[in-house]
Amino acid sequence: MNWYKETLMISTRGKGLYAFTNDVQARVHGWGVQEGMCYLYLPHTSASLVISENYDPTARVDLEAFMERLAPEDQSWYQHTLEGADDSPSHMRAMLTLTSISIPVEDGRLCLGTWQGIYLFEHRASGHRRKVLLRCLQVE
Amino acid sequence: MNWYKETLMISTRGKGLYAFTNDVQARVHGWGVQEGMCYLYLPHTSASLVISENYDPTARVDLEAFMERLAPEDQSWYQHTLEGADDSPSHMRAMLTLTSISIPVEDGRLCLGTWQGIYLFEHRASGHRRKVLLRCLQVE
Amino acid sequence: MNWYKETLMISTRGKGLYAFTNDVQARVHGWGVQEGMCYLYLPHTSASLVISENYDPTARVDLEAFMERLAPEDQSWYQHTLEGADDSPSHMRAMLTLTSISIPVEDGRLCLGTWQGIYLFEHRASGHRRKVLLRCLQVE
Repeated sequence: MNWYKETLMISTRGKGLYAFTNDVQARVHGWGVQEGMCYLYLPHTSASLVISENYDPTARVDLEAFMERLAPEDQSWYQHTLEGADDSPSHMRAMLTLTSISIPVEDGRLCLGTWQGIYLFEHRASGHRRKVLLRCLQVE
Repeated sequence: MNWYKETLMISTRGKGLYAFTNDVQARVHGWGVQEGMCYLYLPHTSASLVISENYDPTARVDLEAFMERLAPEDQSWYQHTLEGADDSPSHMRAMLTLTSISIPVEDGRLCLGTWQGIYLFEHRASGHRRKVLLRCLQVE
Repeated sequence: MNWYKETLMISTRGKGLYAFTNDVQARVHGWGVQEGMCYLYLPHTSASLVISENYDPTARVDLEAFMERLAPEDQSWYQHTLEGADDSPSHMRAMLTLTSISIPVEDGRLCLGTWQGIYLFEHRASGHRRKVLLRCLQVE
């Protein structure tokens, strides 16, 4: 068994879903891993990971609008407001989605479904440089 | 260390929670894994994975009704409507639940809590054949 | 490769987020793991795992209040009410958050972000003794 790792950097331009499927696949390919497990970990509290529809852009638009409604800004009962109106909702949205994902690798490829893409969900209004920690356990 | 894998097929009859705990446990037993880690991955964007109450069926009924209310169909602001009224909400519901789960194995059994069951949550109105990718890392 | 494990016990005093980051880090340190993967699994259906802001306590207050509103008690349509008004909402809240988390270990430390803490989210009104299953795969 072998162990590979890398930190991916993703620049966001504010709120929204940013696909980085190809970045992950390219590393797995570069390492020559045929079979194993790929781990993604996001070391941030106001962004999160999501696996979702990669084909029709309107699916993404709806997911983003849904989150704005589910955990809206500017609620009178928010106490955590020092860093701006988007701060507390960003932790809520991160809590409802994912911090870590484990994806099998087979025949040198991530076992994603046909319509699945890997996304970083930026929850802050301004752009950020986000890290995604990538680890891969090669079993053959 | 050894590596085992299989793809489980789960047929759904439309929206709802479908238990498949025993299918996973049977594979772990069949492989003879005593100690290790079991990984589940769902390669779909309109279904998801959930670990929840396995005893009282009314718990399941409430979870299903809750999702209908949390991400309802037929909202006027939905843009992703080509594939039907249940399509965009199905991606929302999948985003709020799980795509991958990692469960420890000890003494030849999944380390589930007494009341925990493993479920596939089908979010589309019509029945589907769903895959769950099962991987198991045996450490002894 | 080596495999380490332990069960952490966390006593809660009713609803809320309970940090246990240091308990996990102390085990990883004690095992002497420099590089690898740390797995957390929660064998309960009315509590869950969350990684979130560890600095400003008001962030936690808002996350707790948010959950009270997102999956409120005492809805007339709840069927699963035998064990109390907090029972069905506790399964809903668990479903929306995490059951398992995988965190990389590097240079002997969990790869958490600067502001990330690991929390058990207790969803029942009364205090409970909760287990968190900790597993660590050491790759060097």
